[in-house]
Amino acid sequence: MSEVKTIFELSKEYLSALEIAIEEKNSAFIRDTMEGVNSADISALLDELNADMAKYVIDILDNEVGAEIIEDLEEDTRTKFLENFTPKEVADYITEMDSDDAVDIINELPAKTREEVISEIIDPDTAAHIHELMRYDEDCAGGLMAKEMIIANLNWNIVQTIEEIRRQRENVDRIYSVYVVDDKYKLLGKVSVKDILLANDNTHISEIYDDDVISVETYMDEEEVADIMRKYDLDVVPVVNLQGKLVGRITIDDIVDVITDQAEEDRQLMSGISSDVEEDDTIWVILKARLPWLIIGLVGGIVGAYVIRGFEDQIQTITGLALFIPLIMATGGNVGVQSSTLVVQSLATKSVFTDSLGKRLLKMVAIAMFTGLVLGSISFLVVYLYGEVKLGLVVAIALQAVVLLASFTGTATPLILDKLGINPALASGPFITTANDMLGITVYLLIANLLL
Amino acid sequence: MSEVKTIFELSKEYLSALEIAIEEKNSAFIRDTMEGVNSADISALLDELNADMAKYVIDILDNEVGAEIIEDLEEDTRTKFLENFTPKEVADYITEMDSDDAVDIINELPAKTREEVISEIIDPDTAAHIHELMRYDEDCAGGLMAKEMIIANLNWNIVQTIEEIRRQRENVDRIYSVYVVDDKYKLLGKVSVKDILLANDNTHISEIYDDDVISVETYMDEEEVADIMRKYDLDVVPVVNLQGKLVGRITIDDIVDVITDQAEEDRQLMSGISSDVEEDDTIWVILKARLPWLIIGLVGGIVGAYVIRGFEDQIQTITGLALFIPLIMATGGNVGVQSSTLVVQSLATKSVFTDSLGKRLLKMVAIAMFTGLVLGSISFLVVYLYGEVKLGLVVAIALQAVVLLASFTGTATPLILDKLGINPALASGPFITTANDMLGITVYLLIANLLL
Repeated sequence: MSEVKTIFELSKEYLSALEIAIEEKNSAFIRDTMEGVNSADISALLDELNADMAKYVIDILDNEVGAEIIEDLEEDTRTKFLENFTPKEVADYITEMDSDDAVDIINELPAKTREEVISEIIDPDTAAHIHELMRYDEDCAGGLMAKEMIIANLNWNIVQTIEEIRRQRENVDRIYSVYVVDDKYKLLGKVSVKDILLANDNTHISEIYDDDVISVETYMDEEEVADIMRKYDLDVVPVVNLQGKLVGRITIDDIVDVITDQAEEDRQLMSGISSDVEEDDTIWVILKARLPWLIIGLVGGIVGAYVIRGFEDQIQTITGLALFIPLIMATGGNVGVQSSTLVVQSLATKSVFTDSLGKRLLKMVAIAMFTGLVLGSISFLVVYLYGEVKLGLVVAIALQAVVLLASFTGTATPLILDKLGINPALASGPFITTANDMLGITVYLLIANLLL
Repeated sequence: MSEVKTIFELSKEYLSALEIAIEEKNSAFIRDTMEGVNSADISALLDELNADMAKYVIDILDNEVGAEIIEDLEEDTRTKFLENFTPKEVADYITEMDSDDAVDIINELPAKTREEVISEIIDPDTAAHIHELMRYDEDCAGGLMAKEMIIANLNWNIVQTIEEIRRQRENVDRIYSVYVVDDKYKLLGKVSVKDILLANDNTHISEIYDDDVISVETYMDEEEVADIMRKYDLDVVPVVNLQGKLVGRITIDDIVDVITDQAEEDRQLMSGISSDVEEDDTIWVILKARLPWLIIGLVGGIVGAYVIRGFEDQIQTITGLALFIPLIMATGGNVGVQSSTLVVQSLATKSVFTDSLGKRLLKMVAIAMFTGLVLGSISFLVVYLYGEVKLGLVVAIALQAVVLLASFTGTATPLILDKLGINPALASGPFITTANDMLGITVYLLIANLLL
């Protein structure tokens, strides 16, 4: 990355210099070295300091820069840092932020502090926006939207519209579009800043606005909003309430966060990690997220032990039977995860005209039969060369059955979870794979019991 | 989703009506019903038609709409459809597109067609842009950027700048920022359309431009570009060459695609599916992506069988020893996947000040020890109640060892893969988990051999 003016390298050297400057209360050094540095870089730096030191730095900088830094901090760090600020100070920083970010940060505060901070917000517009936005659930369009936008009445002319942009220039950093509404604030369309710039002063908005605008409703789920913005390549989408009244806008940067979070959640579910943990969380937090799934896996293993014990006579008498338990288990697990991943993926990119369930199942069976044939043949050959024709047949038939079963459960489970409103990625996780493992062992030993 | 004007529902009924209209060559019906419908919706619809029918529809619509539809098609479908168009027709549609999308589509064409299409492009600017962009690798900033942008010279005034915007109004759909350059096209900064709108006609760009602009270099990897745009909340980033000359810009919608593709690739690697397949691909394509990994798993299972055979005497004589093979395997696999997922995740959100390797390993050991203790105790209790004290001890100790080993390989493998420039998500895939499974069995049987 290069910046035209400031090339700021986050280095351990600068961090040490900063720590010394804080101890010596050398505010001039801090102000000078941080001049023009992007707030995201300063946030990454403060992440390394304790709360007192961070507060010292934030206090020195402009209120606006401070607000950006606080916005860019990691949630954990921010919570820790903000404990050091008075409600009045938090309120002042929050007033500088876009309303959606302000509400997100208020929601992170403990209930009591939250009320104190809100009561300290002086600007009546900010207070009203925050009150309104706090009513919405975090995961819906209402919870993602911000109130900062430029709204023009259909009957305004260009001069009036530019006047409104001038009035809002401090509140609205980036103008994506100017939204056009009627007297009752019903969303009618939009007009680009480019078109305003190129129009004559006395042109009316009604002559140049585009009435073909895609909007979302306040209660729409955030992932649905993400799908729409991605599908139609939108940088920003207006949010309307049930009456069609324009109440906010959602920008693509929030959607990028939704997509990233979703991918991370899926990945964690697939690997048996509950809740949102990271490598640098405390040992205890990590254990709490990992142990439950491992214990489920362990219970599965204990069930497996009981199953094998039920066939102990065969295992003791038939040479080689026990040898292929891991092979059967591993194949069942792998096939199940593959199948569920493909289904989860096609659920994520849902199209209107998906194949019918019958057609999908038929295809699944065809793939499983062929897979079972290939894997079964290889393993038959291996066991045959080992000198056990009958055992080879048992392994091959069991593999065929296990591949079919694992394909079926791997395909059906995410579909069922999705219908139940549960994240289907869970189907690639350890719970289902453990269940598949045990099913595989049972099938193998049952077939051995029947054929040997 | 609601649209202010056109609410277009993709329905099977409309699809049937459309098919009839195409057969009857009822172009009026098609033009009327598709008026004002978003191109992304029309693309989804054409996806269901054959290439001839789709061409009939695209031919009827405006060139600009046709270009958008072609852009929004799935790659497979587009390749199929475009075979039906003459190089001249393809060239005309491509001229309507942003240069980055045009180049992406040209790159999908067979080599011969590609040359024919390029030679049919009439507009010299378009041809020059495409020639320039085709030089870059697809996965770097140069391969993502487009040439359409508004560039203002530092010495221009507002009137000159607005004149340039007017001149480019057809080429540049959305103006994100106006970039400011010197006489040698070196990027100096940017100015927002809002500021141009609010400035006086004879204000000079040099008075109002912001010289603090983040840019990326042409050769930067696309994922690094994504990280920067995400970190600094950018909608668009200018691209400069090694001399600092402004050569293009990358918008956030392309980055959304990069992030989505990356998440999908990771998910597939984690579940043992190679290359980019989807549920609706042909059986053969799916088999080709799935079978290799399953065969690797099978080979692992065969190795496991040999390992177990090495300990066959113990298995035949010690009651219960075979019972706990699945339990050991499942736990080792689960722990390994959990560990590698956490590492992959922290590699993705790389910070400058990550913990040292030593500190990370120490933490890993602490977590593994505690996990092993909990799982070991539970399983000891179970085996103890089953009446086998000594076997219980063996299982507990083996679990402790396997958890430690799996944590270590799960942590180290992604770090090593990352250093080698291989996607670390592979470490959560079947290859590594199979290796872990076999390692687990060996450790278990070795400990049993030693202690029983």
